[in-house]
Amino acid sequence: MIGLDDVRAAAERIAGQVRRTPVIAADNLKESLVSVPDVNVVLKLELLQVTGSFKARGATNRLLSMDPAMLEKGIVTASGGNHGLATARAGYISGVQTTIYLPENATPAKIEKLKQWNADIHIVGSVWDAANAAALEHVKRTGAAYFHPFADREVVAGQGTVALEILDQIPEADVFLVAMGGGGLISGVATAVKALRPKARVIGVEAAGSPVLLRALEAGKNIALDAVTTSVATMACAKTDDRIFEIVRDKVDEIVLVEDDEMLRAARWLWFEMGLAADLSGAAAIAALREGRVAFNSGETVCAIVCGAGPEAMAG
Amino acid sequence: MIGLDDVRAAAERIAGQVRRTPVIAADNLKESLVSVPDVNVVLKLELLQVTGSFKARGATNRLLSMDPAMLEKGIVTASGGNHGLATARAGYISGVQTTIYLPENATPAKIEKLKQWNADIHIVGSVWDAANAAALEHVKRTGAAYFHPFADREVVAGQGTVALEILDQIPEADVFLVAMGGGGLISGVATAVKALRPKARVIGVEAAGSPVLLRALEAGKNIALDAVTTSVATMACAKTDDRIFEIVRDKVDEIVLVEDDEMLRAARWLWFEMGLAADLSGAAAIAALREGRVAFNSGETVCAIVCGAGPEAMAG
Repeated sequence: MIGLDDVRAAAERIAGQVRRTPVIAADNLKESLVSVPDVNVVLKLELLQVTGSFKARGATNRLLSMDPAMLEKGIVTASGGNHGLATARAGYISGVQTTIYLPENATPAKIEKLKQWNADIHIVGSVWDAANAAALEHVKRTGAAYFHPFADREVVAGQGTVALEILDQIPEADVFLVAMGGGGLISGVATAVKALRPKARVIGVEAAGSPVLLRALEAGKNIALDAVTTSVATMACAKTDDRIFEIVRDKVDEIVLVEDDEMLRAARWLWFEMGLAADLSGAAAIAALREGRVAFNSGETVCAIVCGAGPEAMAG
Repeated sequence: MIGLDDVRAAAERIAGQVRRTPVIAADNLKESLVSVPDVNVVLKLELLQVTGSFKARGATNRLLSMDPAMLEKGIVTASGGNHGLATARAGYISGVQTTIYLPENATPAKIEKLKQWNADIHIVGSVWDAANAAALEHVKRTGAAYFHPFADREVVAGQGTVALEILDQIPEADVFLVAMGGGGLISGVATAVKALRPKARVIGVEAAGSPVLLRALEAGKNIALDAVTTSVATMACAKTDDRIFEIVRDKVDEIVLVEDDEMLRAARWLWFEMGLAADLSGAAAIAALREGRVAFNSGETVCAIVCGAGPEAMAG
């Protein structure tokens, strides 16, 4: 699907339109993240990215890869929130009307932010697939440019740029922990990491209620889940793209699962310990650490991507 | 009161017990912070400090400056929240019972966090002064060690360590924007900045409902306010310490005022634009920028200290 050159080209293309986000060592904790001694955990603060998540990287790369003439009929996508925000902002900076189709489980906080980016919002169906069908219908009707949340080489290449930054900021990173929905982020990250630091492990974290890529790896092919039961909209995906399945199969070392309530507790941990307001997908990598789902060797440096912002830890 | 050597000694003492917090350029904004062209704003993310604010620096330095024998009867303080959290954590890491007296306007979110640090909590009075009187009574009764929120040279030296980090991270900083309550943070910051980068301006931001140091400067002496009307507990102060007044008079270039609702809007701006959940004092420097309270020259680099975390931008 893509290679390191695509990620590097994306980084050059989107520089000046997205933020270089900082990292912070998760040290001086009340409750440590890893029981193995001398394991250093560093957080990549991608929740401080423009629009509150890494999705701005992919959507901006998609935008800037296009002939402006293709944007004349507007932009449309379907998204549980973060990709929608990133796409709405892409439309905003290019002066094009953006239409976002959302499933009913999208959070009010993200809908409020979408409105601030001037997006035209339609809530359709209980799952992403229904909202996406409406978005594709919109494309047929209007000729708008469709921004897929993950099954798009420019989107994947854009997401991968976060790994180039991490490799620059934490060159000693041995393990990358990456939340997964459709698998766009981890595909971009694994492409860059395996090219530049092949010995590092790339570990995916899926919602236990949407283990689409874990089950696909077990089946040896890109399958559809019978049911998606996670309430975390940004990690819900019934079937991914064949090309993404192949990247994950070839380049991702391991996939671990976390429950929704484990992510909520991890989001609360991030808030109490680090002053970070992550959404549940943003807290997924932390949940995997707190729940001991990943094995480490003493002395390893682990980078957990805190990939999205949200108020979930503060609600109740 | 203190000099650069005290700040440097504090930095050495507290290293390993507090976090080095990152900075992030406030770029790629929907709504820019400054109308003057080519002014770069960089945020010091001190809300990601242990316990959620810079206060951990001062309290930890106070703790580590003491003879452990002086801690045998416990630690006590009075605090609207952030200093209380930092003191409770100082007690926690040293294994000493900490008692915190809080005024009634302390936020539930901070009380919840205090409990997580195992503090013994007493809510007394409607303003800090009443809570503090109870804390001093507690000292008399028990012999506990009293941690003043600002009128303490080790606390001020500890807060100043944030400026050493900023000068290392943003050596080109021309302007430092610092929220003020009792003035402990800005006294430490100004001491370090004026010693190491004397041409840089240090600008304080007070709540318009608690302009204690602005009025003191106008009066030419350390006066008490007739009334404190801000609802921002972390910035409320009826009278500061004489030594802090002197540092502010000698080393702070300017004090500007911001209203409570301007801080709330600034906190919402931080959330929407940057994915940061700041408390209202943490958003004070941003409010000063958004409201145009500070004049800049083209090409200047401004460091705004986002000094505390809080859920205020998410509440309603």
